[in-house]
Amino acid sequence: MTQRTVFFVSDGTGITAETLGNTLLTQFDGLGVEKTTLPFINSVERARSIVDYINFVATQSGVRPLVFSTTVNDEVREILRSVNGLFLDLFDHFIHLLEAEIGLASSHAAGRAHGGANTARYNARIAAMNYSMEHDDGASTRDLGRADVILIAPSRCGKTPTSLYLALQQGLFAANFPLTEDDLEHLRLPNALQGLESRCFGLIIDAERLMQIRNERRPGSRYASLAQCSYELRQAQQLYARYNIPYVDSTNMSVEEIAATVMQEKQLRH
Amino acid sequence: MTQRTVFFVSDGTGITAETLGNTLLTQFDGLGVEKTTLPFINSVERARSIVDYINFVATQSGVRPLVFSTTVNDEVREILRSVNGLFLDLFDHFIHLLEAEIGLASSHAAGRAHGGANTARYNARIAAMNYSMEHDDGASTRDLGRADVILIAPSRCGKTPTSLYLALQQGLFAANFPLTEDDLEHLRLPNALQGLESRCFGLIIDAERLMQIRNERRPGSRYASLAQCSYELRQAQQLYARYNIPYVDSTNMSVEEIAATVMQEKQLRH
Repeated sequence: MTQRTVFFVSDGTGITAETLGNTLLTQFDGLGVEKTTLPFINSVERARSIVDYINFVATQSGVRPLVFSTTVNDEVREILRSVNGLFLDLFDHFIHLLEAEIGLASSHAAGRAHGGANTARYNARIAAMNYSMEHDDGASTRDLGRADVILIAPSRCGKTPTSLYLALQQGLFAANFPLTEDDLEHLRLPNALQGLESRCFGLIIDAERLMQIRNERRPGSRYASLAQCSYELRQAQQLYARYNIPYVDSTNMSVEEIAATVMQEKQLRH
Repeated sequence: MTQRTVFFVSDGTGITAETLGNTLLTQFDGLGVEKTTLPFINSVERARSIVDYINFVATQSGVRPLVFSTTVNDEVREILRSVNGLFLDLFDHFIHLLEAEIGLASSHAAGRAHGGANTARYNARIAAMNYSMEHDDGASTRDLGRADVILIAPSRCGKTPTSLYLALQQGLFAANFPLTEDDLEHLRLPNALQGLESRCFGLIIDAERLMQIRNERRPGSRYASLAQCSYELRQAQQLYARYNIPYVDSTNMSVEEIAATVMQEKQLRH
């Protein structure tokens, strides 16, 4: 297997550089990588210091590192560019195309992509997160009408991570509510959700996968048996159909994919 | 103000396209944008359909849209490229530079960046999230030794969102623990954290900002008074110093910036 060291370098958090680099690297199956993120490289001194460090690693390993950068400051970027490796910077290529198209000069302000200046946005996000934590797993029925979306499913189908992701990353008020055996037996939405059908979104998952997950929590229990998992999932699908609630099979999906699907289906893109 | 419609197009979730586009757009101060994400564009038919849609919007608005794309499939990308707008695709530019450098062909597999195939990684992330929820705000002292990091601070300094972000986005076991008035008065770590000093990371925040935040929860209370906020923050800093616990002032930081700082300081980058 081909081996490379990979550096994500940024004058901010490094999140964009990681996203850029990781997305590109997923396309190379035969490549083994060792990754390091170097955030907050926002001065000439820091840039020189990490170029020295990366060059040291390059010499030690004997192969050229891959360096993914999102560095706005031209002076800092020029220093980084001198590194003994492949240097790919997001701004290098795209910012000029955008400037030409829009007819505006870019501001060259560092740390904006994931920076904290916008208090209103920060507060909205914290409010969403508090809401989602308070409304996790049916813990509260207060203010359910305030929810942007209410995820429903049998236990352990992925409601909680999806809700928290929607809150934390998208600022959405995402509640989640379990479907109990009683709800499933009678194919009836929990009382607290009656009248809120249009906010609901359902999850299901492969029965064997659910059995695995439940067995990690309560090994050998009826709750974790394949028969019980299959039954609950069958009933859940019937319940969703009865109330015309859209749903998705989350078995092979990441939290991000489930969240993107929910947002698309419920038209929740901001 | 210059106005443009912006489309984030992807054969996956659209997260990378959004990150790429938003990072670039933060550099244009005089630009007003209306954003739409179009995820899961993974077939020729869908590509044709959204090109028609974007062209319709372009005609209606009278200005060329900006289209940020992360589309791996060459055929789909060729169709998208025909759009009546500025088309910027991550793979177009960078993938060839990487192929040449690495000496491998890319796989052109869609949806990998935020896709769900890796069960081990998914499970680790869910385990981290469950841990962080169970250990939010000192709710449990069980298994605290398992924590990658324990955030400590007076009430409402940003512990919870940072912990959940570290868990959900980075797969870290992040606990958080409040510093009570008693802890602060005696400059003493909570009993449960004795011996775990090396896992701890402290937060502080501007006293007036803390006053604002607390007043939203309990308006006019002693808890929310400027005197009380100032006192707790002063004592917290002394406590951190006494135990040699690193800390950061989160006042003007985003959750991402706080998390990146914690990870850098505690060497928690994976």
